[in-house]
Amino acid sequence: MIRVAVIGYGNIGKSAVEALFQAPDMELAGVVRRKESLKDELPSELAGIPVVSDIKELSNVDVALLATPTRSVPSLAKSILALGINTVDGYDVHKSLADLRLELDQVGKQHGVVAIISAGWDPGTDSMIRAIMELMAPKGITYTNFGPGMSMGHTVAVKAISGVADALSITIPVGTGLHRRLVYVKLAEGADAAVVEQMIKEDPYFINDETHVYVVDDVQELVDVGHGVEIERKGVSGSTHNQLFKWEMRINNPALTAQVMVAAARASMKQQPGAYTMIQVPIIDFLPGDENEIIRRLV
Amino acid sequence: MIRVAVIGYGNIGKSAVEALFQAPDMELAGVVRRKESLKDELPSELAGIPVVSDIKELSNVDVALLATPTRSVPSLAKSILALGINTVDGYDVHKSLADLRLELDQVGKQHGVVAIISAGWDPGTDSMIRAIMELMAPKGITYTNFGPGMSMGHTVAVKAISGVADALSITIPVGTGLHRRLVYVKLAEGADAAVVEQMIKEDPYFINDETHVYVVDDVQELVDVGHGVEIERKGVSGSTHNQLFKWEMRINNPALTAQVMVAAARASMKQQPGAYTMIQVPIIDFLPGDENEIIRRLV
Repeated sequence: MIRVAVIGYGNIGKSAVEALFQAPDMELAGVVRRKESLKDELPSELAGIPVVSDIKELSNVDVALLATPTRSVPSLAKSILALGINTVDGYDVHKSLADLRLELDQVGKQHGVVAIISAGWDPGTDSMIRAIMELMAPKGITYTNFGPGMSMGHTVAVKAISGVADALSITIPVGTGLHRRLVYVKLAEGADAAVVEQMIKEDPYFINDETHVYVVDDVQELVDVGHGVEIERKGVSGSTHNQLFKWEMRINNPALTAQVMVAAARASMKQQPGAYTMIQVPIIDFLPGDENEIIRRLV
Repeated sequence: MIRVAVIGYGNIGKSAVEALFQAPDMELAGVVRRKESLKDELPSELAGIPVVSDIKELSNVDVALLATPTRSVPSLAKSILALGINTVDGYDVHKSLADLRLELDQVGKQHGVVAIISAGWDPGTDSMIRAIMELMAPKGITYTNFGPGMSMGHTVAVKAISGVADALSITIPVGTGLHRRLVYVKLAEGADAAVVEQMIKEDPYFINDETHVYVVDDVQELVDVGHGVEIERKGVSGSTHNQLFKWEMRINNPALTAQVMVAAARASMKQQPGAYTMIQVPIIDFLPGDENEIIRRLV
């Protein structure tokens, strides 16, 4: 059994624990939470599971799933790799993940362990789909259309705006990689709705998109963690144009992200030391079971 | 430059040559055809290209693309691997491809070369999609719906029936992995339409599907090599049900098959000796160009 520790117990961490309980080849080594959270009553689903504030308190951990905010991933991954433990993260900053991989690749090789980075759905499985579309039709354009669903990044950006007590930003795909933003805000005491709306629309996260702002009394009753994506490519195979490809999904966001991380934890056990994005790992390595049986069933 | 030979010059072979002309990192080492075909006038697109009847007449071949009938693949692949040349094939018999891989794996390791087998779209890229869907939602059902488009296997089966002068079998998807078959036949002199229809409907290729038979004067004017597929999965991530995934494409069949084989030829240069299906090869290896640049662009 592959022994996996879950670092962080928010939405993703909780879903990762659920996915580990279902995995036939893995066991939960323990959950690592902040010291403050350890004072709270233990959630019933963690009865009998070691819950600690430092991964060093857990024994024989093969892989750590970093279910922590993305900004904490680079330093946390390095420190865990240095302990001789594989890491899997859902690092989601597209523009810097290639550089993070190069950094973790060095650390992984130095300590004889493996990091699989950006193992979520975008970056992650969507990246695999985009790469497969490109091998099938090397010339052409791929559009990734997100939504409908809640955008974490955009929601955080709105919450940081002065006068906003609570917020939710929904992404609506309008096709060909363009998006509409629906922003629901609860105003802080005395805040001016028109001013808040203006600040949201001028924020770098929103300035290039069609953005609608709605003031509501309670943001939380609107929250639904379902999300969607549609990836389209029209391209050229050889000298043949008009090859059409489409990937579509409608999913519970934290459940899918956590499941992908768990699959990546499995794959990490089969790679040479270093750091990898999902497109650098054979797909079969993410699946449990005998190689020949998988080939017979799926190929 | 990776030097690639194309074995066979039917629909797939012709499309493979076109795809190789477009590949930035490959060159066409030559085309291998049957001795009889060499007597014909050289097709204009092969001007200046060595066209021979034995791959041994070509120099410095890195990879051979087997664009030959699927039944010839096992022995042909072994003989070419034994020459120290990588092979890529589109072997499409689902129930025996896992065993073929084990055989070629031994031959490849013995001669220090690589075989990538079943490198088309199904088996091939569809297999990659099915495996990705399963890593995202390990429990659930995947349906592969083929068509609308011409089925080579079914067409060959009809042509073998007595009283049939020419035939075309079209596959129509009716959802959840079930298919309707539309069969267009030109009758042989004196054949009885009702008898032919009965024999087609009782053939093992058709007996389990809703099959319609139409007698026409000219089958060839109905032929269109476009094809489609829709793969659907509804499954469970962790303990979250109703995760929905769909892959859809509408493509020119030989052009896509050939393009996938060319991508696999590239990938074959990056694997350790042995034989692989596409799900056993990192996706990035199918793409040309610098690894970090691909990660920056696609992940």
